[in-house]
Amino acid sequence: MTGHNTMLFYKSHEEICETAVKQSLEVAKKLRELQERLNPGGNDIWPKMFSSSLIQGSTPAGNPFVVHIAMMVDAIRKQSTDEQWERFGKRAENFEICGTYAQTELGHGTFLRGLETRADYDRKTEEFVLNSPSLKAYKWWPGGLGHCANYCLLVAQLYIDDQPKGVQMFFVQLRDEETHMPLPGIDVGEIGYKMGFYGSSNGFLGLKNVRIPRMNMLMRNAKVQPDGTFVQSPASVLTYFTMVKMRCLIAENNATHLAIAATIATRYSAVRRQSPINRNEREPQIIDHVTQQLKLFPEISTAIAYKIATNSLWSMYHDTLTEIERGNYVRLPELHSLSCALKVICSADASDGSERLRLACGGHGYLTSSNMHIIVGSTSASRTYEGENTVLLLQVGRFLMKSWRAATEGKPLPPTASYLATFLQRKSFGRWSGNWENIVSAIQYAAANKTRLAFESMSQRLKQGQTEGEAANNTGIELTQAAELHGRSFVAVTFLAHVTGPEAGKRSAAFNDVLENLLELYLVHTALRHLSEILQCIRLSDHEMRTLQTRLEKALSQIRPNAVSIVDGFDFHERTLSSTLGAYDGNVYERLFDLAKQSPLNQEPVPKSFHTTLKPFFKSNL
Amino acid sequence: MTGHNTMLFYKSHEEICETAVKQSLEVAKKLRELQERLNPGGNDIWPKMFSSSLIQGSTPAGNPFVVHIAMMVDAIRKQSTDEQWERFGKRAENFEICGTYAQTELGHGTFLRGLETRADYDRKTEEFVLNSPSLKAYKWWPGGLGHCANYCLLVAQLYIDDQPKGVQMFFVQLRDEETHMPLPGIDVGEIGYKMGFYGSSNGFLGLKNVRIPRMNMLMRNAKVQPDGTFVQSPASVLTYFTMVKMRCLIAENNATHLAIAATIATRYSAVRRQSPINRNEREPQIIDHVTQQLKLFPEISTAIAYKIATNSLWSMYHDTLTEIERGNYVRLPELHSLSCALKVICSADASDGSERLRLACGGHGYLTSSNMHIIVGSTSASRTYEGENTVLLLQVGRFLMKSWRAATEGKPLPPTASYLATFLQRKSFGRWSGNWENIVSAIQYAAANKTRLAFESMSQRLKQGQTEGEAANNTGIELTQAAELHGRSFVAVTFLAHVTGPEAGKRSAAFNDVLENLLELYLVHTALRHLSEILQCIRLSDHEMRTLQTRLEKALSQIRPNAVSIVDGFDFHERTLSSTLGAYDGNVYERLFDLAKQSPLNQEPVPKSFHTTLKPFFKSNL
Repeated sequence: MTGHNTMLFYKSHEEICETAVKQSLEVAKKLRELQERLNPGGNDIWPKMFSSSLIQGSTPAGNPFVVHIAMMVDAIRKQSTDEQWERFGKRAENFEICGTYAQTELGHGTFLRGLETRADYDRKTEEFVLNSPSLKAYKWWPGGLGHCANYCLLVAQLYIDDQPKGVQMFFVQLRDEETHMPLPGIDVGEIGYKMGFYGSSNGFLGLKNVRIPRMNMLMRNAKVQPDGTFVQSPASVLTYFTMVKMRCLIAENNATHLAIAATIATRYSAVRRQSPINRNEREPQIIDHVTQQLKLFPEISTAIAYKIATNSLWSMYHDTLTEIERGNYVRLPELHSLSCALKVICSADASDGSERLRLACGGHGYLTSSNMHIIVGSTSASRTYEGENTVLLLQVGRFLMKSWRAATEGKPLPPTASYLATFLQRKSFGRWSGNWENIVSAIQYAAANKTRLAFESMSQRLKQGQTEGEAANNTGIELTQAAELHGRSFVAVTFLAHVTGPEAGKRSAAFNDVLENLLELYLVHTALRHLSEILQCIRLSDHEMRTLQTRLEKALSQIRPNAVSIVDGFDFHERTLSSTLGAYDGNVYERLFDLAKQSPLNQEPVPKSFHTTLKPFFKSNL
Repeated sequence: MTGHNTMLFYKSHEEICETAVKQSLEVAKKLRELQERLNPGGNDIWPKMFSSSLIQGSTPAGNPFVVHIAMMVDAIRKQSTDEQWERFGKRAENFEICGTYAQTELGHGTFLRGLETRADYDRKTEEFVLNSPSLKAYKWWPGGLGHCANYCLLVAQLYIDDQPKGVQMFFVQLRDEETHMPLPGIDVGEIGYKMGFYGSSNGFLGLKNVRIPRMNMLMRNAKVQPDGTFVQSPASVLTYFTMVKMRCLIAENNATHLAIAATIATRYSAVRRQSPINRNEREPQIIDHVTQQLKLFPEISTAIAYKIATNSLWSMYHDTLTEIERGNYVRLPELHSLSCALKVICSADASDGSERLRLACGGHGYLTSSNMHIIVGSTSASRTYEGENTVLLLQVGRFLMKSWRAATEGKPLPPTASYLATFLQRKSFGRWSGNWENIVSAIQYAAANKTRLAFESMSQRLKQGQTEGEAANNTGIELTQAAELHGRSFVAVTFLAHVTGPEAGKRSAAFNDVLENLLELYLVHTALRHLSEILQCIRLSDHEMRTLQTRLEKALSQIRPNAVSIVDGFDFHERTLSSTLGAYDGNVYERLFDLAKQSPLNQEPVPKSFHTTLKPFFKSNL
């Protein structure tokens, strides 16, 4: 167990940060070698795997270069001219330099137009002059910015003749390539100790009269000509397309994180024994306690459901990208809102779910060697970064309001919102049969009903004379509820289609059985979780509600015999799990004890503080 | 800002642990001085405040001595003979020695009878021989055990002539008082890095043929006579009374933690500005976004509700203790189950609530300097220690099953379960009026209905031939649901009584208005949160459900003008808040920046890793 990730956390912050740099660059080298060896010219290993949660076990203190690879290089590729790509994009892609994506400011996050950092065009020198007009305007948070990046993509307000021209991206050098010293006018450093990602070098950046050449503004879309003429981007939404991709990635990574946490907790629950079910019998594996099954199995099924849903989201992403490259933007709003909705529910459910799984490991789930709270930290952070979840839900809510209006006007709807038209066509839900199709319809029906309620509240407020903005703010709670259910409907639909659709014929009967059990659990559990929303628009008898409870208990008991095999089937490497509790061989207690013995404090029988502090204190009390 | 708690976390684990010892002993000294000066002979400052969450800001890395003071001294006082108290209890109370409460083992937690540590009586020498028969039997987790405690209260299986006599407590010396070296046969150390409480020196302990005198078994209740005759305790439940007290304390501390987190997030929300409500207007304080109010205000009202409920719980604790001292044990089961229920819901809601509040602070809530994730860690840990929450809920469930049976047989019920009899007397809930009394009745009604459902499921399973244990396990989900609602009913009842009861006459009208707004929010929010349970037994029209939503929104808007004053009224010291985001003066950004600048990595412009790692890597890519 020497070299276990836990050992890193005994070190000082400075040492942890140094290690994170070292580990991350080793991973980069390794992935590039593997790409070269196994699939030269491809991108499935490098750079793709570099930002996958599967390799997070190799960089337990975080990766200060993941923003460079996953965001900055991608943004330059999408937003720069061919000449710009040649000049600095390739250098970034080749990792000769390293950057970050500097958008968020100390006092500004979500609201892009509120950013204060200025880029004033000086036509005399054909340069932009960059400034942080206040402390609140300091860039704050970008990963790698602290002490790693020597360049960044700066998101700033463009001004020409003091006239605002909107938010643009600028390629800015921060540090000397040879000495790494910050350049004149650059105030850069790390933002300090935080939960999770200890070594990812999140940084701050202040700018004072920093000058960059005109051609350092990314100009594939918007342009500034030498004389200061501003050319608007043909589709300004494109500026944010990198963020759409990041949200797809975050959704997918969260599905993986949840599967990792479920693997650890399920394996541990098969090893740990506690509290006899029958008096005087041996303590059973805790996985035999039904309340424990309720903590484990829904998370397994959720992880699978989200993996299937995010696969479907990626397909839509690639289709939309292809269409955009052909100049067709029509599917963009749907993709945008779906990527927001899935980013939100995957991050929220993976975060809450991995915390439940951590708690399911009892006391040992608090030990860093379990890796559980590291996973919780990673998933939790993703609720806030790249679009704060509530803000994203409100954006989805706006999409739903537009879609609802279109539906009432008989206009065509995007496929993922077509259930709104179905709702309008029906007078009522009809009979509750409780079969899978019926439950999925009920979730969609409840989602549509929430959209209806939000729309009615909005309309009423507008009638009362509230502005659009006030009405939306005052309807915020209902809008977010509708948006959340919109996301869950999509997941339920894709899971059902995956299990019962044409793919089923290509799988073994045994495999289909297991998938069907997981689908049954997922749908029943989701229906119970949203029972109040369902009961608000669909009548269920007492008997039907009790049947749901019985089906839940039955589904748990049917998954029980296969639970360990299912998580083994995820096939995570031990290094990915990085957990004393989740190892394949089940030697939990030996691992816990071995690692504890390696704590630096345990290398001496008596700590220094005994002589300096504790003994004098005892003596003073005699 | 020099000396801010955050600075501690830049250090190595070893340094953090040394600091925790030093800080905790300084706090002990200070509290004893204050007690002496302000209220000599009392215990309201020392030892009481030592385990209060109010002073946790003074020991940010945890307190390795809190188990000694809050549990060990208390347990000795309650379980030892007068002679034992004189011999070692007083020394412990006087802090001449320091111990811990060593119960949990590496492989055994909740199930006390499953503990493996043995104490075999040797009548020849009148000694007990202590052994850890396996690795799983190692004591694991006790706070302070790692490198601080030189004694402990060992919970072990007593054997006389190889016959088990149940779990007893033994006073055991672990380390030499002069040298602090572990005594022969003692294998002791810390269990390693973990989330939260970094410096609380949680330890492990293995015993190999360690001999202690007969009179080191605590013998106020059970006794071993010199010839090996075992005298059973008159009321073995007494052995666990220290745990009941701990659960009351945990419930109360969680109410305080939630109030602290709510104070920080509310103040920050009044400083932070983001996202205009109306286009082209200034970004408002985020507290004006309704979705933000939903994250803040219910937590404020919950913190107050829980403070009131735990005050009531403490009264019952003291009453019961008085009665027990008179030999009357009749209220013990009720106190036990209520303390379990409140420990569970206070820890769960404070933990989830402070995480919601942390998320409400956006990115800055992840910074250690916000103190938010430290609070989340503390509250989260209390879900597991001193009785894992699900296990406690199942115990409450058993109490409810007994109470339900008594109710159906017309037998008297403990006051806090009398709502079960009310449920049985009614044919149906009757009219939903939605006033406060009506909502509280509805919560009780839904709680009673869940108990009924669980009882019916249990009964049916017993009829099908399942054993009591199997039936209880298979009904576990419904039992925990009923138990949770049992706790929430108590909170709703006590909050209503506090606001509308005779005390109201002693308060100003303005104060009563604020309390009434908070009660309204608490009840409406709780009703919506448990709407599916309510709808399962009470019919609400569409209009009545929409009214609840409208009332929720109205309650939020009514609290808005007073929100900052309410949390200011909690009157927490800046040191208790320990937060860059929550300071009274609102200088959030200055504090964040000042502290970031103090990070050790920011003391040099270029980190070592640039020369050793990053630059060679860049060059290799040229």
